[in-house]
Amino acid sequence: MSVAESSLDFLLIETVDHFCTADPDSAYAKLEQMGYRVGQSLAEKYTVDRPRFVDTLDVIKFVCKEFWIAVFQKQIDHLKTNHRGVYVLTDNSFRWLRRCSAENMDHKRFHTALPCGLLRGALAQLGVQSQVNVDIAGGQCIFQLKIK
Amino acid sequence: MSVAESSLDFLLIETVDHFCTADPDSAYAKLEQMGYRVGQSLAEKYTVDRPRFVDTLDVIKFVCKEFWIAVFQKQIDHLKTNHRGVYVLTDNSFRWLRRCSAENMDHKRFHTALPCGLLRGALAQLGVQSQVNVDIAGGQCIFQLKIK
Repeated sequence: MSVAESSLDFLLIETVDHFCTADPDSAYAKLEQMGYRVGQSLAEKYTVDRPRFVDTLDVIKFVCKEFWIAVFQKQIDHLKTNHRGVYVLTDNSFRWLRRCSAENMDHKRFHTALPCGLLRGALAQLGVQSQVNVDIAGGQCIFQLKIK
Repeated sequence: MSVAESSLDFLLIETVDHFCTADPDSAYAKLEQMGYRVGQSLAEKYTVDRPRFVDTLDVIKFVCKEFWIAVFQKQIDHLKTNHRGVYVLTDNSFRWLRRCSAENMDHKRFHTALPCGLLRGALAQLGVQSQVNVDIAGGQCIFQLKIK
């Protein structure tokens, strides 16, 4: 497991680095789009043999458990909702950020573009349109989803 | 293992796709550079606890076995040399190309940029400067290294 992940980690670092260097203004949007398409592809792959989802909460639970485990080898640690279309997903040790230096928060923000897109793409593939924002504190990531 | 690999596979497809769309003329060079830096990082990671290499052949053998296994979960199937600085490495089922459609050979060429860079970067990290070309036939990849 760890071997394939190293390739992925380093490729992520290089990808984010490339976009930030080439065109910082559009870097976030482009990385988010790339993440979106990866999220769609992965969600399609991981739901091929599943019955359809009942409702939005059903989709979100799937993403927090099966999907997150498949992609990040752990589930979302905490799920909260206001029951009016806002869901807050907390990952206490988000893997894709573990190789970013803690001090460089600006760069770290760019590293959240791919995961935000991934989440938005996965949800869209499962029929849920959303807006995704993220807060970072240490290795903890708090994703906030607004369902459209 | 297959889970992390799916993320990597889809990210590779999106990365190559992005570069080809954004600027086809420079796509190959940019992807090769990105692969080069990933190769350096991985080679550094996988040799931390090793004694130094004796000579070029020693480095090439390490790349064909341990390094290839760590990155691609299999070793290079065949290694040939003319004993004058040219080495030919054959991988009979190269993983990073398995999701590319067979008919689109031009796109496939772009997908070889990252692996060529990866190989060149890994060798450079281990003190061997080289030029890397590749021939593709089906899923088979034949890398040709010229040592500088």
